[in-house]
Amino acid sequence: MPTTHSNTIPTIPEASSGSHDFFVQALGRSGLFANTQPSTFNRFAEQCQQRRYAKGTVLFLQEDEADWCYLIINGWVKLYRETLDGDEAVVDALTSGLMFGETAIFENGKYPYAAEVVEDATLLLLPIRLLAEQVKQDNQLAFNMLKIMSRFQRQQDKEIEHRTLQNAPQRIGCFLLRLCRAGAEGEIRLHLPYDKTLIASRLGMQPETFSRALGRLKNETGIKVQGSTVIVPSIESLSGYSCSACTSSYPCQDLY
Amino acid sequence: MPTTHSNTIPTIPEASSGSHDFFVQALGRSGLFANTQPSTFNRFAEQCQQRRYAKGTVLFLQEDEADWCYLIINGWVKLYRETLDGDEAVVDALTSGLMFGETAIFENGKYPYAAEVVEDATLLLLPIRLLAEQVKQDNQLAFNMLKIMSRFQRQQDKEIEHRTLQNAPQRIGCFLLRLCRAGAEGEIRLHLPYDKTLIASRLGMQPETFSRALGRLKNETGIKVQGSTVIVPSIESLSGYSCSACTSSYPCQDLY
Repeated sequence: MPTTHSNTIPTIPEASSGSHDFFVQALGRSGLFANTQPSTFNRFAEQCQQRRYAKGTVLFLQEDEADWCYLIINGWVKLYRETLDGDEAVVDALTSGLMFGETAIFENGKYPYAAEVVEDATLLLLPIRLLAEQVKQDNQLAFNMLKIMSRFQRQQDKEIEHRTLQNAPQRIGCFLLRLCRAGAEGEIRLHLPYDKTLIASRLGMQPETFSRALGRLKNETGIKVQGSTVIVPSIESLSGYSCSACTSSYPCQDLY
Repeated sequence: MPTTHSNTIPTIPEASSGSHDFFVQALGRSGLFANTQPSTFNRFAEQCQQRRYAKGTVLFLQEDEADWCYLIINGWVKLYRETLDGDEAVVDALTSGLMFGETAIFENGKYPYAAEVVEDATLLLLPIRLLAEQVKQDNQLAFNMLKIMSRFQRQQDKEIEHRTLQNAPQRIGCFLLRLCRAGAEGEIRLHLPYDKTLIASRLGMQPETFSRALGRLKNETGIKVQGSTVIVPSIESLSGYSCSACTSSYPCQDLY
């Protein structure tokens, strides 16, 4: 469950990396700014901020007025929604290079989900007003944003598809495959990026279902789990088991 | 299951409505062209085509080279993907005013899903090359497309959420609520827009699960089903039952 929301978000300033040059570098790596006008790019580099957040920080709640959109430098952030009864649905869990909060510009300036830092994270905060203004002026920025949203849409489609076609062990297998480097050979050691309870929520499973499904995946594919480390004896056995119930074949084209 | 794909798609020309004036009117109603430059709008009006398709027509398969994107004038179209084993996942079912196929411009010119007409449909075909070209030149067009994709993304998020938080009868209840006019009072008679097998697939259920869940929904909310007609005694009982396990309250903001 997310921690209580507070207006005074605890941040850890990073003097060394918060320079203009760092911003230029970090923004330059994001697909959002590829080939945009220098004036657009400079405005963002001047007005963005870098902040470091501890695990457990709630950045904003659903329907909060949006001041910023966020670019992840490192760490993990969970996007989620809550029902009135307090049940939580995880929309996605994002890491380095990915952006969130930007669709608030099409939602009357309000965030369509809540966001919580689930592993200590460094984020670049971009003023949402600047984004709303520039996206109407710099066509390349709008085009890049369309490209990013289109890719995200395809992933959401896949997610819906998997909830229909894949069983629970296959969905966990797919999650693990996405952590493997494509083309890796032999035994692979993976580090789970965040805790198992969140992995279960991210995959739309109850914790008990997740445990049972993980047990079955071990039997079917020979993977071993030691704490937050997973040993995959071969990608072939894991992809053979998981990807048979998917409309794409391994390796996926739409990996982050 | 979709019918076999054929390169010669059977179309029924509609001379009366295929005029330039009709195209201007139809495109004008689409949010995609709101406030775009007159030159953009005219290019689409000149180059679009109107076609009528019979139920069962497969318009294109996943990974087909994209020539057109489609605006639905009337009827229903199913977007779906298939696994190698022949299992099918329904991505969405769309009707009047909605567009599909347009994200092919971000997918190397290939459709990311297949499309089949599931109730006789009149479609407006817009050249995908023209869209790819104009979206880079007319910023308003790019902005409108972003708006449409953002709304679609929110709906996909909701879909994923419902598969986690709502049980099967609640998901059917939500589907029916979306067919009701918001604010309608007293008893409501609904016509199911397409057959029950497709409704089940659209909701990610096996036909048997759908039948059992519909039975339970009848008991819980007093709805009656006669063929393709559904009688809802009151919106309150249906929304009270379905929307308690959702992060939005009735009526939804994101209805088509």
